[in-house]
Amino acid sequence: MAASCVFCKIIKGDIPSMKVFESDKTLAFLDINPLAYGHTLVIPKHHGAKLTDIPDEHLTELLPVASRIARASGAENFNILQNNGRIAHQMVDHVHVHMIPKPNEQEGLGINWPQQQGDKDRLQKLMEEIKSKI
Amino acid sequence: MAASCVFCKIIKGDIPSMKVFESDKTLAFLDINPLAYGHTLVIPKHHGAKLTDIPDEHLTELLPVASRIARASGAENFNILQNNGRIAHQMVDHVHVHMIPKPNEQEGLGINWPQQQGDKDRLQKLMEEIKSKI
Repeated sequence: MAASCVFCKIIKGDIPSMKVFESDKTLAFLDINPLAYGHTLVIPKHHGAKLTDIPDEHLTELLPVASRIARASGAENFNILQNNGRIAHQMVDHVHVHMIPKPNEQEGLGINWPQQQGDKDRLQKLMEEIKSKI
Repeated sequence: MAASCVFCKIIKGDIPSMKVFESDKTLAFLDINPLAYGHTLVIPKHHGAKLTDIPDEHLTELLPVASRIARASGAENFNILQNNGRIAHQMVDHVHVHMIPKPNEQEGLGINWPQQQGDKDRLQKLMEEIKSKI
């Protein structure tokens, strides 16, 4: 728990939220300023700003819960998004997984995909580097 | 396994890939047309088009593996993205979680956030509906 964290306050119940799921490790609640109707946040109760700050056992439930919420909300098309860092559009420094329905072009997450031509040699080196560090 | 699925072929080894991690349930490999250097895909070996098609036990490892890859790649800021449906920017119909480094404004995932003013009464009803179905 972090005293100044708005999501920790929601977990503690000090700030109200529209909860749709809760377990000992995970909380899910509706986003009150949704990108589309049904936009939900799934968060670990363990406080940490980035995905890499959270122990594995607090990460395992997040996608199964997001999947159940997607199914329960009736969203046929949707995006799962988890942002790390201000430049990557993270606004609250407590890990949160967005489940964002994509009902039409206008609503939901807008995505730009500035794809690059991969450099095979550089990728080969990166592959070896990641494999050695993982 | 789906005979025509390109990711199932990668899992089987019929199509080469730049693997960085493999377990009995999960495979991770570099995206050869990355949005940024280090862009990696983490996929369940269980075939399914959308998140809601995959049994929970094949979902649990995906975020822990994505986190380990983010750490190993040295990405400080990054986005985790999993798209469901063509309109939601899904291109291959086998669930895949993108780990996309965000090194600067130009590279990595571009995000548009068409936030709406939430209607409290409508959200309250939705909350009850999701809770009853989850």
